Amino acid sequence: MTHHPCPGFKTAGVSAGLKKNGRRDLGMIYSETPAAVAGLFTRNLVQAAPVQLDRERIKSGLCRALVVNSGNANCCTGEAGRLAAEGMARAAARGLGIDEQKVLVASTGVIGLPLPLDKVEAAMSGLIAELRPEGVMDLARAMMTTDTVPKVVSRRAETDSGPFFITGVAKGAGMIRPDVATMLCFLMTDVSASPEQLQRLLAAGSDRSFNRISIDGDTSTNDTVLLMASGVSRVDLKSGGARRLFEEQLNEVMLALAKGLVKDGEGATKLVEITVKGALTDRDAMRIADTVAHSNLVKTAFFGEDANWGRILAAAGRAGVPLDPQKVDLYFGDVRMVSGGVGAGAATEANATRVLKRDEFTVTLDLNMGAGHASMITCDFSVDYVKINADYRT
Amino acid sequence: MTHHPCPGFKTAGVSAGLKKNGRRDLGMIYSETPAAVAGLFTRNLVQAAPVQLDRERIKSGLCRALVVNSGNANCCTGEAGRLAAEGMARAAARGLGIDEQKVLVASTGVIGLPLPLDKVEAAMSGLIAELRPEGVMDLARAMMTTDTVPKVVSRRAETDSGPFFITGVAKGAGMIRPDVATMLCFLMTDVSASPEQLQRLLAAGSDRSFNRISIDGDTSTNDTVLLMASGVSRVDLKSGGARRLFEEQLNEVMLALAKGLVKDGEGATKLVEITVKGALTDRDAMRIADTVAHSNLVKTAFFGEDANWGRILAAAGRAGVPLDPQKVDLYFGDVRMVSGGVGAGAATEANATRVLKRDEFTVTLDLNMGAGHASMITCDFSVDYVKINADYRT
Repeated sequence: MTHHPCPGFKTAGVSAGLKKNGRRDLGMIYSETPAAVAGLFTRNLVQAAPVQLDRERIKSGLCRALVVNSGNANCCTGEAGRLAAEGMARAAARGLGIDEQKVLVASTGVIGLPLPLDKVEAAMSGLIAELRPEGVMDLARAMMTTDTVPKVVSRRAETDSGPFFITGVAKGAGMIRPDVATMLCFLMTDVSASPEQLQRLLAAGSDRSFNRISIDGDTSTNDTVLLMASGVSRVDLKSGGARRLFEEQLNEVMLALAKGLVKDGEGATKLVEITVKGALTDRDAMRIADTVAHSNLVKTAFFGEDANWGRILAAAGRAGVPLDPQKVDLYFGDVRMVSGGVGAGAATEANATRVLKRDEFTVTLDLNMGAGHASMITCDFSVDYVKINADYRT
Repeated sequence: MTHHPCPGFKTAGVSAGLKKNGRRDLGMIYSETPAAVAGLFTRNLVQAAPVQLDRERIKSGLCRALVVNSGNANCCTGEAGRLAAEGMARAAARGLGIDEQKVLVASTGVIGLPLPLDKVEAAMSGLIAELRPEGVMDLARAMMTTDTVPKVVSRRAETDSGPFFITGVAKGAGMIRPDVATMLCFLMTDVSASPEQLQRLLAAGSDRSFNRISIDGDTSTNDTVLLMASGVSRVDLKSGGARRLFEEQLNEVMLALAKGLVKDGEGATKLVEITVKGALTDRDAMRIADTVAHSNLVKTAFFGEDANWGRILAAAGRAGVPLDPQKVDLYFGDVRMVSGGVGAGAATEANATRVLKRDEFTVTLDLNMGAGHASMITCDFSVDYVKINADYRT
């Protein structure tokens, strides 16, 4: 993955000894100017200490730095956890010589173990010394838990006022739904924008990306998405043209990161887009797409490269929305496997199986009832998923 | 498992060649008298042909025979599927010399393949020849798909009017939630009862058994539970004393069968009862128990014998009901692992891990908010589950 550094920001990632294997586990984003900031946080009622801290601090709309660690979620850690989150921010603020209220924090890893703040403090000066415009891959690595590759996506775009940049970094989710496996995403840009503008753009972009790989209410204890704008470019989102171009680029970056999370889902070997059309409403279509995309039986069949369309119809049938089984058509890629609720037979299934052998493919359900449509991005469900999650803490 | 034959009924199971491996795949229950009958069927909108047929025929409240096959679900098979379901019943009625409208049918197996009616017809006279009071184990075997053991539970109880019997046979579900893997359960008794009485008892018993291992709307295309009463004993449920004893015994049979399904869940190695108490309402407690019991991350941790209580709290936190994380206590067996949302540390966890090494254990969440409570029965989620379901049709 090639990427652009984002003007106004320096990044770094080092090892603080939080991970048992000695890999990078402490990262930082530093903004040379007070950056405008917007954030989306988990809706889980069980919220990690860093999430609780950030929710308060982000109200100012300004941010100078973010400290993130992997290897420990600092969640269900009580009062000590709150002090540890504050301590992480304070150590960063002291080292950088900035207001600690302008420092945000994020954590990911095992829930319920005390965060060893002393290790974070001991590593802080080394982390700050590593800060540089090109440090984003190190940052991405420092955020990884069961991710197998760092995820960085960036865009450069030209406006009448000059270029702007967006650089996003993310860490992944257990399987498709960011259940307990935390999703973290930090987006940096050099445009000028108000926190309110950023918040609207971030929420809209999430609906087209991260919310298509998860569902409301199914968030982890630590999920955090932040968008920071340094304002050091000449591009201001007050201009409608710049705003539209920025929104388009931001959505592309977020969708690419979301797909990256699914591709690197725990044990995943396939990227599958589930599209539902012909539903009575978009909302109905989304509920069916979501039910199919989360069905263990559907996902294990994808892993087995088995065109088991009956499981897909059965999942659709229990989604809780209107559906006439005798009207449903189902496609694997372009292969029409089911017409009017009845399978096309062995010859067609051989063609469908060829589609399932690809690394990426689409499944389309046409309910033939209305104009509602929606799609979800999912992955298959493999033996390795179970192995990873059975042994996660050992 | 020891069991009693149920007076008034004969049962059998033979091989009709529907399964590739030559095992039993065609079973029958025959009632020597017109039995009163009640049924519960899948609420999935995609319903197999036998379910559609039974829903109509059961309206008469009387039943003389049931024919069941495994190896093919006769679902999503269109008009041919309807004709095959009717054909199964007709072949049985002809062989038995009874009204075909009084014959019910059930199927389980792969969805979407045509049911080879000719094989069923060819095997029918042999099946009928095998009918005998003690044939229930053969029947249970003929219903199995990925089940590893036949499931039969029976009770004999004494009343003032003499004894009565209940004999139930069931086949299982993929993992805990009977998603696409069909749950079939057939209960025979020799008491006298009206179809309406039987329906009420069956619905109430399901809420205490099968509905605690699944959730509303999450049913497969073929799920069927039938209760048949031959009335050949002297016990009549018009008597309040007999009715209460019968209800108690019926509930015990159904719960034992439900637990048997979970124990034999695909790849399952652990039986886990998730109890939630201290919720504001029973309904809230059930939603949390259900969310925890279905969490892949929780269930893979059970498989790994890992007391990963953070995943349990996180699942509770996304159940969509009120919860104060700082009030929650969590127990593995009798070991209090979490108090007020904070973990008890490594020494206690060692004790908790010993609980998880058992074949059966309980997990209790106390929200300390109110008097609502509920429990769910679940199993762990193993590597074998994925293997079984990836390769199911091959």
